[in-house]
Amino acid sequence: MKFIYRFGGTKADGSAKMKNKLGGKGANLAEMSNLGIPVPPGFTISTDLCMDYLKTGKYPEGLIEEAEKGLRHIEGATGKKFGDSANPLLVSVRSGARISMPGMMDTILNLGLNDETVEGLAALTSNPRFAYDSYRRFVQTYGDVVLGVRPRSKDEHDPFEVLIDKVKARKKVKLDTELEAEDWKKLVAKFKELIKTRTGVTFPEEPSEQLWGAIEAVFRSWDNERAIAYRKLNRIPHDWGTAVNVQAMVFGNMGADSGTGVAFTRDPATGENRFYGEYLENAQGEDVVAGVRTPKPIAQLEREMPVIYKKLDGIQRKLESHYKDMQDMEFTVERGKLWMLQTRTGKRTGFAAIRIAVDMVDEKKIGRNEAMLRIEPEQLNQLLQPVFDAGEKRKAVKEGRVLAKGLPAGPGAATGKVVFNAHDAQERARKGEKVILTRIETSPEDIRGMAAASGILTQRGGMTSHAALVARQMGKVCVAGCEDILIDYGKRKMTVAGKTVKEGDFISIDGATGEVIAGVVTTRPSEVIQVLAEGSLKPSKSDVYQRFAKLMEWSDQVTRMHVRANADKPEQARIARSFGARGIGLCRTEHMFFEGARIDAVREMILADDEQGRRKALAKLLPMQREDFAGLFRQMDGFPVIIRTLDPPLHEFLPHDAKTQKELAEKIGVSAKKIKEKVEELHEFNPMLGHRGCRLGITYPEITETQVRAIFEAACKVTKEGKKVIPEVMIPLVGNVRELRDQRDVAERTAKQVLTEQGIDMHYMIGTMIEIPRAALTSDEIAEIADFYSYGTNDLTQTTLGFSRDDSGRFLRDYINKGIFTDDPFQTIDQQGVGKLVALGIELGRETNPKLEVGICGEHGGDPRSVEFCHRVGMNYVSCSPFRVPIARMATAQAALREKLASEAAKPAKKAVKKTAKK
Amino acid sequence: MKFIYRFGGTKADGSAKMKNKLGGKGANLAEMSNLGIPVPPGFTISTDLCMDYLKTGKYPEGLIEEAEKGLRHIEGATGKKFGDSANPLLVSVRSGARISMPGMMDTILNLGLNDETVEGLAALTSNPRFAYDSYRRFVQTYGDVVLGVRPRSKDEHDPFEVLIDKVKARKKVKLDTELEAEDWKKLVAKFKELIKTRTGVTFPEEPSEQLWGAIEAVFRSWDNERAIAYRKLNRIPHDWGTAVNVQAMVFGNMGADSGTGVAFTRDPATGENRFYGEYLENAQGEDVVAGVRTPKPIAQLEREMPVIYKKLDGIQRKLESHYKDMQDMEFTVERGKLWMLQTRTGKRTGFAAIRIAVDMVDEKKIGRNEAMLRIEPEQLNQLLQPVFDAGEKRKAVKEGRVLAKGLPAGPGAATGKVVFNAHDAQERARKGEKVILTRIETSPEDIRGMAAASGILTQRGGMTSHAALVARQMGKVCVAGCEDILIDYGKRKMTVAGKTVKEGDFISIDGATGEVIAGVVTTRPSEVIQVLAEGSLKPSKSDVYQRFAKLMEWSDQVTRMHVRANADKPEQARIARSFGARGIGLCRTEHMFFEGARIDAVREMILADDEQGRRKALAKLLPMQREDFAGLFRQMDGFPVIIRTLDPPLHEFLPHDAKTQKELAEKIGVSAKKIKEKVEELHEFNPMLGHRGCRLGITYPEITETQVRAIFEAACKVTKEGKKVIPEVMIPLVGNVRELRDQRDVAERTAKQVLTEQGIDMHYMIGTMIEIPRAALTSDEIAEIADFYSYGTNDLTQTTLGFSRDDSGRFLRDYINKGIFTDDPFQTIDQQGVGKLVALGIELGRETNPKLEVGICGEHGGDPRSVEFCHRVGMNYVSCSPFRVPIARMATAQAALREKLASEAAKPAKKAVKKTAKK
Repeated sequence: MKFIYRFGGTKADGSAKMKNKLGGKGANLAEMSNLGIPVPPGFTISTDLCMDYLKTGKYPEGLIEEAEKGLRHIEGATGKKFGDSANPLLVSVRSGARISMPGMMDTILNLGLNDETVEGLAALTSNPRFAYDSYRRFVQTYGDVVLGVRPRSKDEHDPFEVLIDKVKARKKVKLDTELEAEDWKKLVAKFKELIKTRTGVTFPEEPSEQLWGAIEAVFRSWDNERAIAYRKLNRIPHDWGTAVNVQAMVFGNMGADSGTGVAFTRDPATGENRFYGEYLENAQGEDVVAGVRTPKPIAQLEREMPVIYKKLDGIQRKLESHYKDMQDMEFTVERGKLWMLQTRTGKRTGFAAIRIAVDMVDEKKIGRNEAMLRIEPEQLNQLLQPVFDAGEKRKAVKEGRVLAKGLPAGPGAATGKVVFNAHDAQERARKGEKVILTRIETSPEDIRGMAAASGILTQRGGMTSHAALVARQMGKVCVAGCEDILIDYGKRKMTVAGKTVKEGDFISIDGATGEVIAGVVTTRPSEVIQVLAEGSLKPSKSDVYQRFAKLMEWSDQVTRMHVRANADKPEQARIARSFGARGIGLCRTEHMFFEGARIDAVREMILADDEQGRRKALAKLLPMQREDFAGLFRQMDGFPVIIRTLDPPLHEFLPHDAKTQKELAEKIGVSAKKIKEKVEELHEFNPMLGHRGCRLGITYPEITETQVRAIFEAACKVTKEGKKVIPEVMIPLVGNVRELRDQRDVAERTAKQVLTEQGIDMHYMIGTMIEIPRAALTSDEIAEIADFYSYGTNDLTQTTLGFSRDDSGRFLRDYINKGIFTDDPFQTIDQQGVGKLVALGIELGRETNPKLEVGICGEHGGDPRSVEFCHRVGMNYVSCSPFRVPIARMATAQAALREKLASEAAKPAKKAVKKTAKK
Repeated sequence: MKFIYRFGGTKADGSAKMKNKLGGKGANLAEMSNLGIPVPPGFTISTDLCMDYLKTGKYPEGLIEEAEKGLRHIEGATGKKFGDSANPLLVSVRSGARISMPGMMDTILNLGLNDETVEGLAALTSNPRFAYDSYRRFVQTYGDVVLGVRPRSKDEHDPFEVLIDKVKARKKVKLDTELEAEDWKKLVAKFKELIKTRTGVTFPEEPSEQLWGAIEAVFRSWDNERAIAYRKLNRIPHDWGTAVNVQAMVFGNMGADSGTGVAFTRDPATGENRFYGEYLENAQGEDVVAGVRTPKPIAQLEREMPVIYKKLDGIQRKLESHYKDMQDMEFTVERGKLWMLQTRTGKRTGFAAIRIAVDMVDEKKIGRNEAMLRIEPEQLNQLLQPVFDAGEKRKAVKEGRVLAKGLPAGPGAATGKVVFNAHDAQERARKGEKVILTRIETSPEDIRGMAAASGILTQRGGMTSHAALVARQMGKVCVAGCEDILIDYGKRKMTVAGKTVKEGDFISIDGATGEVIAGVVTTRPSEVIQVLAEGSLKPSKSDVYQRFAKLMEWSDQVTRMHVRANADKPEQARIARSFGARGIGLCRTEHMFFEGARIDAVREMILADDEQGRRKALAKLLPMQREDFAGLFRQMDGFPVIIRTLDPPLHEFLPHDAKTQKELAEKIGVSAKKIKEKVEELHEFNPMLGHRGCRLGITYPEITETQVRAIFEAACKVTKEGKKVIPEVMIPLVGNVRELRDQRDVAERTAKQVLTEQGIDMHYMIGTMIEIPRAALTSDEIAEIADFYSYGTNDLTQTTLGFSRDDSGRFLRDYINKGIFTDDPFQTIDQQGVGKLVALGIELGRETNPKLEVGICGEHGGDPRSVEFCHRVGMNYVSCSPFRVPIARMATAQAALREKLASEAAKPAKKAVKKTAKK
């Protein structure tokens, strides 16, 4: 077995294909070597060895010798010598796993320095201060990482820093930069004493002893707490291990002919195909990152170091052509010689991702399928959201106006005056003011205020809180669960970070980052929205839209599932359709109940003493609901529309404060006392598990009857207008086939009545939501009388996990931090638990009803990873909020593509099995 | 195929074994005939024909002729003739299913009467009034049942009764008994007119036409709404069908040598082996039931009709010997001739059931296994509860003092002064007053008040509400969910049935029936309690206890599962053990938190700002919890004790009203504002799905740590006292193996620490509750690190069904009425849904951990049908509240016996299969 892979010079032992063995960094260094690109020479110790060493605590035979050869290779390629006092070879020792785990494991720089070689470095660089600063950094890191000298309790400061602080105090200076070579030299001695006192071990002056200590420390760092937690969080297997890269140090701070920089083969923000980056002359890599000096744009390098620039430009072209993707590179120039330190696939914004993917297809670098797989579907969201003016945002950050950070619950950017209740939001919006509705949390009563606001900010609630759900459905910017703000409704103000924000003060919220910013930051709608939703921009005028449309078109050609939208209003349906939704997967009729006069009729129904009273109120609601549904049917001409019967508990529709109760009493002519009593009567300890869903329709069949009548009267009306209507009635919260039978009977009877009255025949379906574990467990029974299933995975997650969506924020963060759940199960479906029930429900259901149509309408329907799961378990469609339709379309396409790739990858294996079998 | 089975005379075509074909009534009539017991002759049309007729609407060939033969048989045996005007044969036509469905289907009496035969009846009885009253009743019933003349709307009165009322009004009389022969005669004519007008059909004078109409009506009544609903409710298959019994009428009202009565072979109330019953001379069966005349005890018959009595006594002895069970018989004496109209297994109280079963074993009539299977386990409860003095209760009912009826949530009888809050309950109890704690609903804050009260009455909540659960565990009488009472806490009164009951007024509640009675009804503790729990009665002095103990002993000899108790306090553990519990299956530590100074420490912990503050408060709690646990361990010497770590959400421990908050603030030295804020911060929308169970221990490991330390310090202490302690730590609400791993780590570390400190080694287990669907679904993972599972089926039912136990009362009654659920799923486990998860969890769990011990600690652990399910899915034990231990013991024995019977029954079938296979 081979453990050491050399790189640098003109060829390497490894290649980019060997990431599993060499880690990402090592493999790419080898690949660059093979391409003839100058990288500082070095060698990689393979990941296999890491796991072996962690298990046995021993190195395999021959390793020491192999590593010696590796060192000789480096010495040969650099002309330097390890431990040589005149021309010392210094190396870095870095971790490098298959997947980058930034900052999780240990790195040691400048290894090889000791009391002798440091003098060599000082002479070579003509910079004793730099040499001794490097030396003390090395000793400090080595003491910490290899020898374990670190604070012994939470209260203790870093013991090395304590020593530095003492020197600074004595010299009466504040900054490290104010210390001189001599100071650092003395500190090196003190550091060594500290190490001796603390550990009993003398700091090793011998470079090879230093090297083996560092290698062991890097291996061990694979199992430090941080790294384990990170792997849990990112679903990285614990048995991968890390490689160790030992590489010659190069210095960009050796004078005017030196420098260092970071570059991208295309613009990572816009995706534009231009060489992009920045550099600093006479500087080390840390200086670029630390931002002490302002780096210069890469273009300037062409003027300052034309030869270097030309080389670098050639390398970047070569690398992109070779990797066929945008690269993110680090380079250093040491005394006029260019070294490439790293190349990797570059991170990019959604705008850039799409532009690069589509352009590379046009450039014939990659195929369409590859282009689609390169997009993070979530990134498409960026193309739909209003955006802050980049300059203004930067300015605000610089001015320290960022007040707090909450959850990025509804992406985009919004700016407006703070209001603390829905009524004020509407009032001010009516006057043309832009407002940010700021609430401790929101409830259905706030919906009109949310619709009127430019953005929504809440103090409590998670990514799937009421505020977040409604905001995303409305396409509103939302920052939720911003626990650092403290709202005082009474005084109409909030305090945050010691500052007070009063009603009417401007704030800006960034739904993509969760930032809350004081004052105005200008925004504008995205190009895609201007084309699709507003129609205010011609498609041909928008490059962004053009590429977006191409991708969407390609996705439709490969997908198996289709995408519907959750939409309650014609306007939402229109937008959803413009984004490519092929039907409505969920219309929550109750979302219309707060519109216009509906709420009064609803409340009258709730307060009625008997069926007769309820029917009287429902009769008022009927024409309004009919119009609601007709609007949806018109927009969805030719596509199915699933309308769910009443779902929330009735108390959600009654006012809970005395003042509004009194107003309502006067309006509908019952006593305020009666309203109060009704509110108390309807109070529930756990409304989530209470009198809601089909339970309402079973207690009050007249509600189901009226809603179904409204649906079919609307369907007939719109059919007569010449449109194609496909109504689907959905009964919520079924857990027992007998519930569905009861409600199906009511619905079917009513539908037939209306169709007979209207003399119209049409295809319709009656189905149910699967959102209670019992429904999935008894799905074989339920499917016998259901035409379709829509998985309500929000509620199914609540019940299967026993997590209240509204309350789980309190422990869910702890849970994710501790790795109990790797994802918020309300954002990404919990495949091990909830997923088992989903799959079981589909399997049992299709056993008794092979024609069963199955979809999902929970928030997961717009989450790419969950969409892939839906594809795998054989759903027919996913339904999500209108603004997530493009994301879901891309995710369905990717799911189909990945399945295809996996089955193609499995083919040779199958063939092999067949061959073996034949033998 | 034979459809008609004759009986009466000296032999019958059928027998008692043919219940499926002949129905219960028909089979027993045939059996009595075969035994030579005089029954009025008749014939039974088999149940097969019913289903056939309901499907096809036709009778099979030959039926008419067979039935004619049946009629000739009756005529021959009675000497009367169908349709004969001088000596008319009258018959009854009755339904009779395999299982009695009292009052659900139709019955027609006196069939054969017409304008001619009525004169014959008048002459034969010398009682024209009786003859015409019988005639009009027949016409009325026939018009209703066969011809469908009944009210056409809810508002219409019965049209026949309207006619009767008119006659009474004209005659200015009030009672039917005041009408004379001539009046009834006229009414018969009017009834016939009504029938003609309403239906266009002339009332058939021809007896055989009457007969076929009646037979058809009885068949059809199998599918009337009432019967269908009853079958759903009682799990009777819809395809059984009913038989029809056509039988000669006999009349007990033909003079002084006639009479009628009901008798039992043993006393159905006490089980005493004495002939028991009552009769009325010169009367019909209805008169006994209607209670117009007071019947005489059967002993008096010996004096009044010595020959008849002797015959009857011989018959009852014969029937009991034959059926080997207590019989409930109806008889009629017609002109000195005794006729038996019915015999069936008699219903009995719990006291009687046990006495009869044990006595019959002593009498060698049945074996022990048969005796055990004869007990309804639920009936054992009666033996443990205080009882109302029978005479006083009767008096109260007679005086109309029954105010309302709620759910019989905690059996027994209690009387006391009404109080409306826990504080008053304690105050008055301290003064020696007996109180009934009356609340809209109860919460953990009420526990001390509940403990102080003699009984608990709640306005809201079901059989498994907080009040009901705690009451049953405490062995308190409880009537829950009594929706007819309206409590006004402010005015310290309640209104019910228009009456006002004020604080301090006496009421009595019957937890066996749910009745709420005004005033005092005297109670006394049961004998079994006097022996076992109080020790105030010597076992030898109680016949009830003697038999109870025998049954319990027998049950232990056949059972496979064992029974533990849910007990939180030493006293509960003591009682549970005296009832035969072999360990504690659930100690809810938090139930102790309201005792003494604990609550202050708990509140201090909740209000602490950081871990340090929490640890300080926990340190105060530690010695108290240690004493709690030590008490349990002492009582359970030699048996395992499962202690669950903290489960409820923390807000349950904080006071919610301003006054108590203020008091607490002063007591523990924090501001009332802070307490209020904490309460608000901890508020949850769905506490059931909130921050509770192991989620608390994961956020605050120091809580788990302290509790586990208390457990093991107590275990060591009691071990040192020379007792055998088997502690088992149970982590609640686990849904993910990583939660259990986290908490198991804390628990195990702490346990080892304590054992090392104390220098003691002991066997202990760490396990979890399975109460979240996800736990069952991922049980293969969880079982790998769990030593035991306890199914928390209360919560598992809540989550699997999406039913909040506290709120579901609102729709659960509708659900049961509509047959959506046949049982309250919180009382009897929902086998189709929750049961699937339970079985899956056990199967998956034992796959990865074959040694896994499995039990149940939800309320279902004390429900006999659920216990049988637990046995079937292979649990090791069930755990229930102390007072249900005897019930559970009997249920586990029955489950084992039934399994044995089923496997024995399956053996011949298996043999047959084997034989066939051999061929």
